[in-house]
Amino acid sequence: MAAAMVAWRLVGRLVGRAVGPGGAFACPLTRLAFPAGQRRRMSGASPVLVELDERAGVAVVRLQQPPVNGLSLALLTELCLALQKLEDRRACRGLVLTSAIPGIFSAGLDITEMFGRSEERLGEFWRAVQQLWILLYGSRLVTVAAVNGSSPAGGCLMALSCDYRIMADNPKYQIGLNETRLGIVAPFWFKDALLNTVGHRAAERSLQLGLLYSPQEAFKIGLVDELVPEEKIQARAAEVMAQWLAIPDHARQLSKSALRKQTLDHLLMHREADIQDFVRFISRDAIQKSLQKYMEMLKQKKAYQVVSIGRILWNPRVRIMIRVLVRS
Amino acid sequence: MAAAMVAWRLVGRLVGRAVGPGGAFACPLTRLAFPAGQRRRMSGASPVLVELDERAGVAVVRLQQPPVNGLSLALLTELCLALQKLEDRRACRGLVLTSAIPGIFSAGLDITEMFGRSEERLGEFWRAVQQLWILLYGSRLVTVAAVNGSSPAGGCLMALSCDYRIMADNPKYQIGLNETRLGIVAPFWFKDALLNTVGHRAAERSLQLGLLYSPQEAFKIGLVDELVPEEKIQARAAEVMAQWLAIPDHARQLSKSALRKQTLDHLLMHREADIQDFVRFISRDAIQKSLQKYMEMLKQKKAYQVVSIGRILWNPRVRIMIRVLVRS
Amino acid sequence: MAAAMVAWRLVGRLVGRAVGPGGAFACPLTRLAFPAGQRRRMSGASPVLVELDERAGVAVVRLQQPPVNGLSLALLTELCLALQKLEDRRACRGLVLTSAIPGIFSAGLDITEMFGRSEERLGEFWRAVQQLWILLYGSRLVTVAAVNGSSPAGGCLMALSCDYRIMADNPKYQIGLNETRLGIVAPFWFKDALLNTVGHRAAERSLQLGLLYSPQEAFKIGLVDELVPEEKIQARAAEVMAQWLAIPDHARQLSKSALRKQTLDHLLMHREADIQDFVRFISRDAIQKSLQKYMEMLKQKKAYQVVSIGRILWNPRVRIMIRVLVRS
Repeated sequence: MAAAMVAWRLVGRLVGRAVGPGGAFACPLTRLAFPAGQRRRMSGASPVLVELDERAGVAVVRLQQPPVNGLSLALLTELCLALQKLEDRRACRGLVLTSAIPGIFSAGLDITEMFGRSEERLGEFWRAVQQLWILLYGSRLVTVAAVNGSSPAGGCLMALSCDYRIMADNPKYQIGLNETRLGIVAPFWFKDALLNTVGHRAAERSLQLGLLYSPQEAFKIGLVDELVPEEKIQARAAEVMAQWLAIPDHARQLSKSALRKQTLDHLLMHREADIQDFVRFISRDAIQKSLQKYMEMLKQKKAYQVVSIGRILWNPRVRIMIRVLVRS
Repeated sequence: MAAAMVAWRLVGRLVGRAVGPGGAFACPLTRLAFPAGQRRRMSGASPVLVELDERAGVAVVRLQQPPVNGLSLALLTELCLALQKLEDRRACRGLVLTSAIPGIFSAGLDITEMFGRSEERLGEFWRAVQQLWILLYGSRLVTVAAVNGSSPAGGCLMALSCDYRIMADNPKYQIGLNETRLGIVAPFWFKDALLNTVGHRAAERSLQLGLLYSPQEAFKIGLVDELVPEEKIQARAAEVMAQWLAIPDHARQLSKSALRKQTLDHLLMHREADIQDFVRFISRDAIQKSLQKYMEMLKQKKAYQVVSIGRILWNPRVRIMIRVLVRS
Repeated sequence: MAAAMVAWRLVGRLVGRAVGPGGAFACPLTRLAFPAGQRRRMSGASPVLVELDERAGVAVVRLQQPPVNGLSLALLTELCLALQKLEDRRACRGLVLTSAIPGIFSAGLDITEMFGRSEERLGEFWRAVQQLWILLYGSRLVTVAAVNGSSPAGGCLMALSCDYRIMADNPKYQIGLNETRLGIVAPFWFKDALLNTVGHRAAERSLQLGLLYSPQEAFKIGLVDELVPEEKIQARAAEVMAQWLAIPDHARQLSKSALRKQTLDHLLMHREADIQDFVRFISRDAIQKSLQKYMEMLKQKKAYQVVSIGRILWNPRVRIMIRVLVRS
């Protein structure tokens, strides 16, 4: 038990150091500040809305980056900063992660962050993606994802990193790690998070085919824990949170660490290599050319201005074009 | 195949050495002796009743330590001794583990063993808990748990360590590793045994929340293999045992080892460190103070004289008090 | 991503070297040659029928080794050669593995290959069994098993090694790793392939009991992915293949490698030791005597001329005799 506890602290320290203002990943300390009062909106124009109910010890974090909560470096930085602040805030014991944009939880990584960027910038972007996962997957807080819209790729990863997933039972929504369909590959820690949730066989099929699941299908394979009518999702998240907060924090955190530490350590110990792998892969001429053509296509056809990978799949015409591009 | 076989023998030797009279964990060789005849009760006042049917090659081991089969050092020692004897007995090929106390399989570790004890005694206690798991989880015998009552914490661990779990379908009964609710944490090998049974996701949720499942829920997640009406559980255990004994022992044992050896080795290779972790954790002032208050409360309120951790949960008033104590 | 890609190539190279004509495992380069035209049967008297539809990029591989597609060294060699050729053929993107013999997919390893053979020959046989699994489990192709008959032991392994398993919904058919019932043990890589498909608990029970499942049972535990009426199995396999081929090959292959590489590496890194283990185990006097008696029995009772292990179970009389032999 002591060993597990020490390990947990170690992760905490690593995470803390990585995002601290003097560390390798410096978050701009702007716009977000927790007010003394309760239940006040903590940011205005920010893409990350944080409401902390100090009495309950619960923060609700809402993503609001139109059009599809694409994970740009700016959004990632804001989100990591907000999560780290909640992590450090003693009064906070749990967080609900959800979207302020109707119909979309998050469309995943912002594709514009991957095209025509310097290696340094690409590395910074990838480090921020890693950081988001490390913070969420290893959080000391109870984390509940209220998936109130579609959630492909990186959006699905965020949900997978929480302790509990509630999804709106709307058959139009989809969730899954669909990277493969776009000709790219989910990194090993995306895969590990999926595998720990749905098991080896479902993960194998899911990743090879880049499957996007309806809420009913996602529930069936265990990708989400519960389905609720869309209008009740926030209330249900609060109920679930109350159940989880009835458990003593320290013991719950140690149990969480016992089950997640190995998976977290895998990335923590290979973080730089993982960044280099990403930068090398995404900088390849073939990949950049595909991205360029895709970006140009987006500019020409304003109707398809979707800045995030996952969205591509939802329009058959774009999907076909992408497939051709990726193959060429 | 040969490699697997050697490994199995190695485990056998390690186990044998550890419990042998000259080893680190000396069982008092008293009270239990196998008579030559068949189907005779093998012990009288002992908390461990063993009946060996030599013709069938099957032993039934019944726990009878009132009020709730709490795993005290005395009971653990008797049980390990009985299991080791059956392990060494050529005529014995299978064992059914069950309870002689109505409504309770086992309430798990005896909390009085953890309060106000010397470090030496705490270490001895924990070594006995380890030994029970090593013997059961790595047994060469077919092991069937006939879970005829509630089975929290260490009681659940015993069931998890068998090859097959049959539970009485009585909605009043509960089973699960609920340590987290009491502010303590299931050791890594409890976690591994659960994970190997219900998978990563169910284990994560189960351990973080310290869930106790009804028989129906336990069956649904695979924590038990089969539900039967309470009055038929022993007959059904005998039927299942006959099916398992139809398989050649040697091949079955090698297959079992192939799937359990890695998990067993994890503890066997870190056994002393695990004991030290336990002793250090349980000796902490905060933990001892909580235990003291709880013990005093038990003395004052005779109605709550339940000596074992798991039982606490079954009385809402006690649960609330404990939670307060743990937090203070 | 780059790391995963390199790893994949490494496996490819290892596999390639192992089966190349100058390598340790030399396939006789006979009988099989791909014609230039499409949809022509690629071999005549061969036990391995290969039809490659170059336009679709899909090969159908049919086993036709009467009476039960027992995996003899000859069949293994032909099959490995065919698989390697398809692997190397750029026009081929997927393969359907099925049987040309009604009612039987494959009865698994040919028992006559294990009796009265020199150590060299036994080693050659086992290397071919390994090679088949390495090729199938690590194939760059989409692999769909159309299980159109019973599939015990090594037959089940072949199905487990594919990406997707469709089984004819005929209650007379059975599938499973039933080695334990015959007194032998599934090698660790059989176990790993099963574990990756049905999870730890189902694998433990399945292997300890040597369970053979009906199609419905196999579907329930996830051992097969889909059941179809027998007459529709080939059409359904083609449909499924088309779905899988809609995914970009490169990304699909990297995702497959990410989930299978560790399991493959386990054998690749212990291949020689695994061969030695097999040869030592099967050469033991007790095992050879059992095999001898069984072979003699087969000769005397022509009615039981089943050359492959799995088949034994389907006749109660033979099963009983075998059990006696194994025990003696």
